[in-house]
Amino acid sequence: MHLIAIGGSDAGISAALRARELDPRTDVTVVVADAYPNFSICGIPYYVSGEVTHWRNLAHRTYADLEATGMQLRVDALATHINVDARTLVVNAPDGQEEELRYDALVIGTGAVPVRPPIAGLSELGPDDGVHLLHSMDDTFALTETLDRPGIERAVIVGAGYIGLEMAEGLTTRGLQVTQIEQLPDVLPTVDPELGALVHAELERHGVTVACGTRVNAIERAASNGEGPLVVHATDPGGAELTYPADVVLVVVGVRPDTELAASAGAELGFKDAIQVDRRMRTNLPNVYAAGDCAVTHHQLLGTTYLPLGTTAHKQGRVAAENALGREREFAGSLGTQVVKVFDLVIARTGLRDHEAQAVGFLPLTVASQADDHKAYYPGSHPIQMRYTADQQDGRLLGLQLVGRLGSEIAKRVDIAATAIHNVMTIAEISDVDLSYTPPLGSPWDTVQMGAQAWEKAARDIPSVGITRHEPLAAQPSPQG
Amino acid sequence: MHLIAIGGSDAGISAALRARELDPRTDVTVVVADAYPNFSICGIPYYVSGEVTHWRNLAHRTYADLEATGMQLRVDALATHINVDARTLVVNAPDGQEEELRYDALVIGTGAVPVRPPIAGLSELGPDDGVHLLHSMDDTFALTETLDRPGIERAVIVGAGYIGLEMAEGLTTRGLQVTQIEQLPDVLPTVDPELGALVHAELERHGVTVACGTRVNAIERAASNGEGPLVVHATDPGGAELTYPADVVLVVVGVRPDTELAASAGAELGFKDAIQVDRRMRTNLPNVYAAGDCAVTHHQLLGTTYLPLGTTAHKQGRVAAENALGREREFAGSLGTQVVKVFDLVIARTGLRDHEAQAVGFLPLTVASQADDHKAYYPGSHPIQMRYTADQQDGRLLGLQLVGRLGSEIAKRVDIAATAIHNVMTIAEISDVDLSYTPPLGSPWDTVQMGAQAWEKAARDIPSVGITRHEPLAAQPSPQG
Repeated sequence: MHLIAIGGSDAGISAALRARELDPRTDVTVVVADAYPNFSICGIPYYVSGEVTHWRNLAHRTYADLEATGMQLRVDALATHINVDARTLVVNAPDGQEEELRYDALVIGTGAVPVRPPIAGLSELGPDDGVHLLHSMDDTFALTETLDRPGIERAVIVGAGYIGLEMAEGLTTRGLQVTQIEQLPDVLPTVDPELGALVHAELERHGVTVACGTRVNAIERAASNGEGPLVVHATDPGGAELTYPADVVLVVVGVRPDTELAASAGAELGFKDAIQVDRRMRTNLPNVYAAGDCAVTHHQLLGTTYLPLGTTAHKQGRVAAENALGREREFAGSLGTQVVKVFDLVIARTGLRDHEAQAVGFLPLTVASQADDHKAYYPGSHPIQMRYTADQQDGRLLGLQLVGRLGSEIAKRVDIAATAIHNVMTIAEISDVDLSYTPPLGSPWDTVQMGAQAWEKAARDIPSVGITRHEPLAAQPSPQG
Repeated sequence: MHLIAIGGSDAGISAALRARELDPRTDVTVVVADAYPNFSICGIPYYVSGEVTHWRNLAHRTYADLEATGMQLRVDALATHINVDARTLVVNAPDGQEEELRYDALVIGTGAVPVRPPIAGLSELGPDDGVHLLHSMDDTFALTETLDRPGIERAVIVGAGYIGLEMAEGLTTRGLQVTQIEQLPDVLPTVDPELGALVHAELERHGVTVACGTRVNAIERAASNGEGPLVVHATDPGGAELTYPADVVLVVVGVRPDTELAASAGAELGFKDAIQVDRRMRTNLPNVYAAGDCAVTHHQLLGTTYLPLGTTAHKQGRVAAENALGREREFAGSLGTQVVKVFDLVIARTGLRDHEAQAVGFLPLTVASQADDHKAYYPGSHPIQMRYTADQQDGRLLGLQLVGRLGSEIAKRVDIAATAIHNVMTIAEISDVDLSYTPPLGSPWDTVQMGAQAWEKAARDIPSVGITRHEPLAAQPSPQG
């Protein structure tokens, strides 16, 4: 049995590790397009910031760790063609030689590539000019090379999603003056605008200039007498033309699945042109699986979607390997759980927001509330902002968004809700769970329980909400103790 | 409708609040034995330490907050007799007058009283001598009065459970030299000794002298030429006699249910002589409910037990009120979830330990493991010690114990496991849950998922473990990404 994984990031390595664990007789080869297998892409902002002192530390495992599991690594090797019928993979080796590898099972984990938005000049300018995309380790080294040049002081970041925000913090930490431009009405558009506004304020509090509702039209090299090597031209919400001088421009507006190899072999594409897979991570091609950012994602509440996340890639790679080795195992499904640290704030979400829930046929109600992270009498307490979404008809918990201070256990509080959604709990049942309490770290009703009770109270006060008719007494506030 | 709650702590106040919320036409009276309704008993160590600057801050709600809900408070009023047939409660008012209050429903929330261990001298000595129990606000004021006397430098704490440990930290923070004596082999006997040993080391690291396996035999006033006002006589594990000079002695070895009033009215007592209640918090007496530390606890894995906790009292009081007002609602049950901070460590548990699970017929396996709280490349990561307990036959998750640093989100990580146990998940399913990840706060597989995978790996390596026969491929380690 020979399993080949294409891709040295989360999905490919996870599949390879799992195959070696499940059956040490399995030959496993990982074909890695660059020289950096099993690197933590999510850690790049912390290397650029200087907090991670050496790029090698970003490796989840060293080359030696990986080889010790018995897998073969082929780095700097580009997979160029899949012969589905012959079950071979054509690979361009570093020396330029073409080689054909036989497989019994193939796991495609080619990941994603950064989206290049339609900005004039973007395709002409590149790292040498100080204009960067950021997705791979090579992108990272190109960026740090720019940053190491003398006189690099002003950065413009195009995009204010997870990576854009982390880079705004990272470059600020590194000492740059950062301007963040977001086309949508506020930063972090994956949470409700009320919470995005808190992130916006946190950025400004740390000296980042934030321009939302602002479309970047062009990037150009400044005239020699200009204010900087680069100028970014944009249009503000009122239609006014803006120009931002910059020494470095970072364009981070999302990713799209890298499916060229798979599609050319006949793999069916699905949502957002990601590789179509079933819950066992099987493509339509025999013996060919796909996992991670190149494939569609099964979401427990949305069905098939595209939601590229490292956590999901790890789980999917593992499931792909199990099925490749003849086991039957389904990917349990994403909940879109995400967390991001932006300076001293932590923002997390799981499940669906109101409009997302509506779009798939739920009858959601979203209720905002606030409660302290721990008893206010104990020093250092901070409020947590919550937005709970649940179905009005049966009270089913659909989603939770949290914003709070670093240290307020935001990440693991959202995970309580993720575990509850995974188990199809109602929002009333959240208050039944025996959660931990000590005054320095919580309250007798945990913050997430107080938020759930605030939802119930709001639902009771809306006459049209079905749950109040069926179960009028579950929809009440509670002593918060 | 007139509901009377006896007891101004968690259970009584929670019942009163809930009754007022459910139906504002309900007359609600709370009979409070002292002058401190709705005070946070759990916060006392932080008032004694000086971290809570005024005792009034320990109130969950002020007197005015409580009255604003429409409830009547009768403070310094001792309930002395229940006439079950006449549905009246006899109360001794502060002025010494006896009064008989009619009720339609009665919620007994008399709480617990501190256990007085059989130590010679304990019944003769009291606060004036510097010998203290600690449970109520009056106990707290007596203790701080002692501590405020000149020359109070050496404290002996008898007992190393939750309160004992918090007081060891609190008195150390206040500047005292603390000796902690525990009769059992190690401190915090509610977690496995391997974890208790970590707490032991943390105490010593902060200058606390810890004597385990040590029985206190007597406390006496020292002779006038003695080393201190008090001497504690104890026997060490080897049988040697020890004497500890002390300026103040605190005896905190647990509580027992305060059931005198209920029992004298004919209430049936159950486990540990706590008031027997069903899951609707009904006693055997008509229209009489009991909740909180005076009553038995329904535990989701153990059945009926006694486990006095503030979190449980809040939930039970709420359930009692709902049933008192004619609704049908069951207490979902405790999981014994607890967390305690001891200096810079946080220790948490939920569910059952190995011997507890065995005792009720499970076939448990407990596996210790360790994983970082977040990616090690990001500054400030610390390992978390885990002990997972699950059933060998079907992989059902039974319990989790965690020890880690303050800041490692220990409390809410144990709550993920509590939510999982509440939903009767298997330990393998923990890895299916879409938990949040960002390098400063976690890993692609969260710490609690790595611990679950370590359990699966250990189970696979034990040939006798049933789960490996039924589901051999779920019992494998995973890439930790």
